[in-house]
Amino acid sequence: MQLGMVGLGRMGANLARRLMAAGHECVVFDTDPTAVEAVVAEGAVGCGSLEEISDKLRAPRAVWVMVPAGDPTEQVVRALAASLDSGDAIIDGGNSYYRDDIARAAALAEQGIDYIDVGTSGGVWGRDRGYCLMIGGGAEAVQRLDPLFAAIAPGVQAAPRTRGRGSEPIAAEHGYLHCGPPGAGHFVKMVHNGIEYGLMAAYAEGFNILRNAGIGTATRQADAETAPLAHPEYYQYELAIPEIAEVWRRGSVISSWLLDLTADALVQSPDLDDYSGRVSDSGEGRWTAVAAIEEGVPAPVLLTALTSRFSSRGLDHFASQTLSAMRQQFGGHAEKPAG
Amino acid sequence: MQLGMVGLGRMGANLARRLMAAGHECVVFDTDPTAVEAVVAEGAVGCGSLEEISDKLRAPRAVWVMVPAGDPTEQVVRALAASLDSGDAIIDGGNSYYRDDIARAAALAEQGIDYIDVGTSGGVWGRDRGYCLMIGGGAEAVQRLDPLFAAIAPGVQAAPRTRGRGSEPIAAEHGYLHCGPPGAGHFVKMVHNGIEYGLMAAYAEGFNILRNAGIGTATRQADAETAPLAHPEYYQYELAIPEIAEVWRRGSVISSWLLDLTADALVQSPDLDDYSGRVSDSGEGRWTAVAAIEEGVPAPVLLTALTSRFSSRGLDHFASQTLSAMRQQFGGHAEKPAG
Amino acid sequence: MQLGMVGLGRMGANLARRLMAAGHECVVFDTDPTAVEAVVAEGAVGCGSLEEISDKLRAPRAVWVMVPAGDPTEQVVRALAASLDSGDAIIDGGNSYYRDDIARAAALAEQGIDYIDVGTSGGVWGRDRGYCLMIGGGAEAVQRLDPLFAAIAPGVQAAPRTRGRGSEPIAAEHGYLHCGPPGAGHFVKMVHNGIEYGLMAAYAEGFNILRNAGIGTATRQADAETAPLAHPEYYQYELAIPEIAEVWRRGSVISSWLLDLTADALVQSPDLDDYSGRVSDSGEGRWTAVAAIEEGVPAPVLLTALTSRFSSRGLDHFASQTLSAMRQQFGGHAEKPAG
Amino acid sequence: MQLGMVGLGRMGANLARRLMAAGHECVVFDTDPTAVEAVVAEGAVGCGSLEEISDKLRAPRAVWVMVPAGDPTEQVVRALAASLDSGDAIIDGGNSYYRDDIARAAALAEQGIDYIDVGTSGGVWGRDRGYCLMIGGGAEAVQRLDPLFAAIAPGVQAAPRTRGRGSEPIAAEHGYLHCGPPGAGHFVKMVHNGIEYGLMAAYAEGFNILRNAGIGTATRQADAETAPLAHPEYYQYELAIPEIAEVWRRGSVISSWLLDLTADALVQSPDLDDYSGRVSDSGEGRWTAVAAIEEGVPAPVLLTALTSRFSSRGLDHFASQTLSAMRQQFGGHAEKPAG
Repeated sequence: MQLGMVGLGRMGANLARRLMAAGHECVVFDTDPTAVEAVVAEGAVGCGSLEEISDKLRAPRAVWVMVPAGDPTEQVVRALAASLDSGDAIIDGGNSYYRDDIARAAALAEQGIDYIDVGTSGGVWGRDRGYCLMIGGGAEAVQRLDPLFAAIAPGVQAAPRTRGRGSEPIAAEHGYLHCGPPGAGHFVKMVHNGIEYGLMAAYAEGFNILRNAGIGTATRQADAETAPLAHPEYYQYELAIPEIAEVWRRGSVISSWLLDLTADALVQSPDLDDYSGRVSDSGEGRWTAVAAIEEGVPAPVLLTALTSRFSSRGLDHFASQTLSAMRQQFGGHAEKPAG
Repeated sequence: MQLGMVGLGRMGANLARRLMAAGHECVVFDTDPTAVEAVVAEGAVGCGSLEEISDKLRAPRAVWVMVPAGDPTEQVVRALAASLDSGDAIIDGGNSYYRDDIARAAALAEQGIDYIDVGTSGGVWGRDRGYCLMIGGGAEAVQRLDPLFAAIAPGVQAAPRTRGRGSEPIAAEHGYLHCGPPGAGHFVKMVHNGIEYGLMAAYAEGFNILRNAGIGTATRQADAETAPLAHPEYYQYELAIPEIAEVWRRGSVISSWLLDLTADALVQSPDLDDYSGRVSDSGEGRWTAVAAIEEGVPAPVLLTALTSRFSSRGLDHFASQTLSAMRQQFGGHAEKPAG
Repeated sequence: MQLGMVGLGRMGANLARRLMAAGHECVVFDTDPTAVEAVVAEGAVGCGSLEEISDKLRAPRAVWVMVPAGDPTEQVVRALAASLDSGDAIIDGGNSYYRDDIARAAALAEQGIDYIDVGTSGGVWGRDRGYCLMIGGGAEAVQRLDPLFAAIAPGVQAAPRTRGRGSEPIAAEHGYLHCGPPGAGHFVKMVHNGIEYGLMAAYAEGFNILRNAGIGTATRQADAETAPLAHPEYYQYELAIPEIAEVWRRGSVISSWLLDLTADALVQSPDLDDYSGRVSDSGEGRWTAVAAIEEGVPAPVLLTALTSRFSSRGLDHFASQTLSAMRQQFGGHAEKPAG
Repeated sequence: MQLGMVGLGRMGANLARRLMAAGHECVVFDTDPTAVEAVVAEGAVGCGSLEEISDKLRAPRAVWVMVPAGDPTEQVVRALAASLDSGDAIIDGGNSYYRDDIARAAALAEQGIDYIDVGTSGGVWGRDRGYCLMIGGGAEAVQRLDPLFAAIAPGVQAAPRTRGRGSEPIAAEHGYLHCGPPGAGHFVKMVHNGIEYGLMAAYAEGFNILRNAGIGTATRQADAETAPLAHPEYYQYELAIPEIAEVWRRGSVISSWLLDLTADALVQSPDLDDYSGRVSDSGEGRWTAVAAIEEGVPAPVLLTALTSRFSSRGLDHFASQTLSAMRQQFGGHAEKPAG
């Protein structure tokens, strides 16, 4: 099949490469001509403008937009819509808010253009490993684009089959799924990322507990302002964190791809000194939290994982000052100085 | 009545003063002779040693120990026990772990000495305001010491009476309560402090949200690593935190003594710049958390309030580094530098 | 002054009574004629329609709307706006979302009508105790209405003055505050309620720990699926919850109005058997959570307090089923039956 | 090598089978003779008593204890110690508290017996998949038993090797690790299980959000006591949970063994109706929480995951009643009835 690809950053370029490797034809554009040249050198048809993409694709056209969520996506979608025709499809593979998808799909439907939202997971590893695709949009358009999704997804052999599944693997077993109407793809991807925050925090907190398993060996100055260590005799371990991450990768209940990556990082930086620990958060974690709140679904772990990222960036500062102020007022507790 | 008082720090000295003001006789000791002199100047009988206290009290003696929890309390209790007789009583008014009370009470019972544990709340304000007393120990001894507890407690007039209480106020309405057998006093005080952590965190987090109500006015650089502010138009307020703390003190559902103290602090330091925000925690918050866990009682708010204090002291650092390491591994996300 | 009052439920009627007691004139309307009659009998001027309010007030008019937030408020405000003139003011004293205030204020400003949003705290007690008022809107209009706010608020004598405040009490010390431009009043009220959720949860969790302090006395059947009680000897207390709530009201660090109310409830229902424990949540707690998330302010205690309410209504059910399913899969753990 | 195995439940029997398949000789005992017979039929040497194990093993002996933690393990270890000699080793492969290990190792050291604690993860799948082993104890003894650990562990081929690891795989890459002195094995296993709770909760909460993505389609009765759904138009999805679990297994960032198991369960019970959702917790989750608290390490996600399990069993009931009681007191809010 033919596919237009707009946005040749790491994700977009790798998607194009994966599609071409599977025999599909890619017509590509990026505002950076050198990004276009690089992919053209690997077999793609290059374009000098968004409009050119429409010209070089045969109807019914399909154009995948892989640019940052928010305004950039909005602008590209609008510009594309102006040069596409009824029956064509625009696929948003970025991290758009599913509510924007709902609005866009409705607007494009008036032009007869199908809008497909695709939550794409796989990070920098997807080119080789394949990408997990969570798809929203009209059934007919999703069906028409099936060969593209199948080429991008990892394929059924990427994991052992689940017991009880029928002899013929369903699409989800190949690593892509039509989740529902417009927005459903990004909704599922949003929750996916919300879960990701929780998983990451669980590992991070656990490793921190292991890291501090030897605090009983330190002599700590007695101090009326700080709880003394209750049982120093029970905290005498100096644990090899990189080896623990490694051993858990095989046979344990908590083996996962995130653990694999943690083990990678710990080989490269055993004390993680390469990292300052100011952890960013992107939109999906926040949107998941808002969805949980609006649904009335208790998600204390996901919410707490999100707030820990805020704290890692010092955003709890005024709250902590308030606590110190109260302690000073009721108990005359002076703050213990840093260091 | 007569009472021995060991430990003339802020709390011990003020307790003695409050007792003497109510007509009781205090026989006092501290390792610091100047502390003894100060209270003697206000009418107490001073002692040069722990043993002297026993000599100067008439049987059945009662000695209140007001020294730091843990080893100091343990040593004073043991030394006192050596010079006291069957029928005497030792009162531990500090912040001992209730499990230590249980052990001490059992050991002293073999000598016929009553051990009374008293959780004492009131902070630096107790001398004038009175102290809230949570008492554990044998019923007979607690009854014998009732006049002392009544003198220390705030008295029924300190708050409007609860609807439905009988015409004769019960002891709890005076501000002291025999909670149960040995340890019960410090158990209740422990949970009291656990609640205190939760209350403090609730105010602190709320004030932080108010403090940041104007972030929509700041120009923020677009940044793929950070979630953009969703609705800058809704975060345009510059709120006067000290005045908000003040207004909530009258008529609102969240008025409290802790809020009164916060309002005090905010008059003195409107931006709380006097505080660095490294918040200590003492034993009770941790013990409450352990009790909740051992009981199997869900206390997510109290546990979270405790962990926020740990985070305020930077103890989440390795966990945050772990998160950054994972993000770098799966997404090639570089950390956003500080500042 | 004159004030129109629309909505004579518990809050609206009591506000009118409090205003009339202070010498103000109230022109009142409710869709329920008997509600109008009741307040007219106490001195108000009654109306048979919204339009009549405009007729019976002298310009510049001020009308207080005290109806449920959302559609009802929206409809009343629109209807009032049709019969009011430039220079008049509409006051929304309900629990509106501050974002709606911003939109309404802008729309009414085109007509020259001032829109004032007032977060009103005090519950069923406000008539006697006074209401805490958090006010948003234009400075001139807020100033014009000052006598009304002063009459509704509790007054400076309702709490001891904060140390360091000047000789002349500011408005906040009377119990009302102009917080900022449109929406600022409801924004502050929203966070107030968010804090309220946190405070309530802190007490509730603490009382639950006290309630279960005797679980070591129960014989528990050994069971491979459940963690055994670690130290039964430390959980042997049968604590009198109503008396503990009472004793904390005087002299303790955690005394508060919410604690007073809890003590009230515990006298009436010592085991709280009158309550099923399905805890509702209204909009403000959720909106506070969303504000914290959008601001990037860590509010783990407030968020957790909110999710506990969801859990109390069984909304964690599918999540719990998922946990049981996983346990069954990896460990062959059968669920322990209820009861 | 020879190994004694005490306790032939699911775990013990499968460990013996896996060892025998690798050419080791197992001398086995269980209080249930039929359990012994079953393993003898597969090639083990059976014993009729604990003492018989010592007789049938050549010195230096090694006996693996695989019975429930706590009293049962304590009794078996003591009985074994009575029949073993200096130079022999006892291996505790159960879920003992690491503090008990420290005490046992010290006691047995006086007899010259090595005590090795082994945290064993793998659940019902370990026989085929291999078990992840976290080992504590003296270096010499652990080294001596290396062939046994290597046979039980999954082996290096069970996962792709971590980038940057040397050409010769370390023990951790085979799936077993000597973590440190006595107790270190169970300490690491304890934290492993603490992490497991967090991971499980993250998935469970996420699936619950997906499950409720269609609540906007339901007509909900207006109700002053409950927050209305903010944006019903954004919650119109009916998502196929089993397929979503499946699609995430390939290519996504959150793929893991726990997700594989969840996908299994959802094929068998698509709505999880087979599960009531009363989630047990065993000791390790609680111990991890206590360790975090005593270390002062913020672990809000792990602590919250633990408390959610308590809530799933209704242990938040009195807290929820307290919340309802407060709401009734300050706002006259009647509880909304169940159903």
